Amino acid sequence: MADFPPAMQRLIAEFSRLPSIGEKSATRLAYYLLNSNRELAQSLSEALRKAVTAVRLCERCFFLSEEPLCAICRNPNRDNTTLCLVEKPMDLVAVERVGEYKGYYHVLHGLWAPLKGQGPESMRLKELIERVKAGGIAEVIIATSSTVEGDATAMYVARILGELGVKTSRLAQGIPKGGELEYSDEITLSRAFSGRSVISP
Amino acid sequence: MADFPPAMQRLIAEFSRLPSIGEKSATRLAYYLLNSNRELAQSLSEALRKAVTAVRLCERCFFLSEEPLCAICRNPNRDNTTLCLVEKPMDLVAVERVGEYKGYYHVLHGLWAPLKGQGPESMRLKELIERVKAGGIAEVIIATSSTVEGDATAMYVARILGELGVKTSRLAQGIPKGGELEYSDEITLSRAFSGRSVISP
Repeated sequence: MADFPPAMQRLIAEFSRLPSIGEKSATRLAYYLLNSNRELAQSLSEALRKAVTAVRLCERCFFLSEEPLCAICRNPNRDNTTLCLVEKPMDLVAVERVGEYKGYYHVLHGLWAPLKGQGPESMRLKELIERVKAGGIAEVIIATSSTVEGDATAMYVARILGELGVKTSRLAQGIPKGGELEYSDEITLSRAFSGRSVISP
Repeated sequence: MADFPPAMQRLIAEFSRLPSIGEKSATRLAYYLLNSNRELAQSLSEALRKAVTAVRLCERCFFLSEEPLCAICRNPNRDNTTLCLVEKPMDLVAVERVGEYKGYYHVLHGLWAPLKGQGPESMRLKELIERVKAGGIAEVIIATSSTVEGDATAMYVARILGELGVKTSRLAQGIPKGGELEYSDEITLSRAFSGRSVISP
C-alpha cells in the first residue's frame, strides 16, 4: 500500500497534534501548503521559529511579551492602583479592545478546576498575592469567565484577597447586549435580577 | 490599546491564511503553542521547512514524492496496462488503502469546474493524453468524485480518451454500504437502478 512521502506524513502528524485538528484536516492543510501555497509553508515555518524564540511571559503580569516586561507593564501612564485579573492573554486583549480600562493586569494562565485536576498551584496565584502584598493596589477586578470554573476561581481568589484587606470586585453578570429575555437561561436571569440597577428614583 | 507581541501577531496572521482557520482559531493555536507546547511549535516549524524542501510531484503520475518518480511509479511489479485517474493525492491514498487496485495512477490536481473558472488547462490532462498516446495502456479507470464537477470531468476526459481509442471506465455509482434505501436521494437511486447487476439467472 502506497502512502504519502515521509516528509509529508511527518507534516500531517505534527499538524494532527494541534488542538481541534484531526488527521483529515491535517492532511488537507499539508496538501494545501505543498500544492497551492509553498510560500505560506515557508513563512509559517519561519513565524513559528521566531515566535518560540522571541515570545515569553512578562515577569510582572505574565502577559505575553518579547521583553522582560510587557508593553502594558512598561507604560508608566496607567493607573497603578487597579489590577484586572484574567485567565489568559486572550482575555486581556479582549478587555484592551474595549479601551476603557486603564489599570494594569495579572494573567493567571489557568483556573481552579478540581474536576480537571487543576488546583490553585496551576495558576499564577502566588505571584498575584505577592503583588498585592507589596502594596499600592486599591482594587482587584476579577474578570474570569462566567463559567463554573471562572466562578469558583473568582470566589477562591476573592476570599484570599479579602484576608489581605484589598477591595475585590467582579465583572457584572446579566443579559448580554442583544440578548432576548425569552431565551435567557435561569442563572443569567437570576443574576440579572440580583444585580439590577436603579434607573429612576 | 495593547495587543499581543509582534512575533505572536505574525504567527496568528500566518495561521489565519490557512484554509478553514479564522482569526480566533489562529489565536488559540498560537497561544497553545507558545504556552503549552513549545516543542511542537519547533517540530512543526521544522516539518514545514523539510516538507517544502523535500516533497515535489512525481514526474510521471503527479502524486507527491521525494524523488523524481514516486514509490508507485518506481514499483515495476504493478500492472502497467491500467491507469486510475484521480483528482488529488488524497484520493490516490484512499484507493491504495483498499489494497485491491494494482495498476498505476494519474493525478489530475484539479477538476473541470467552469463555475469556479477552472478550465481543462487547470488539470494535468495534457500529460495524461501524452501517457495514453505513448501506448501500452488498455484501460483508464476514471475515479473522480461523484459530484457535479467530478461527473463533468469524467465525461470530458472519457470523450477525449474515446477519440484516442482507449477503453475508459468509471467507478460504479449506487447505494453505499450501510445506506438505507428510504433515505437515498433520487440521483443515487436512479444510478443504482441503471447500474444494477444480475445475481441469479
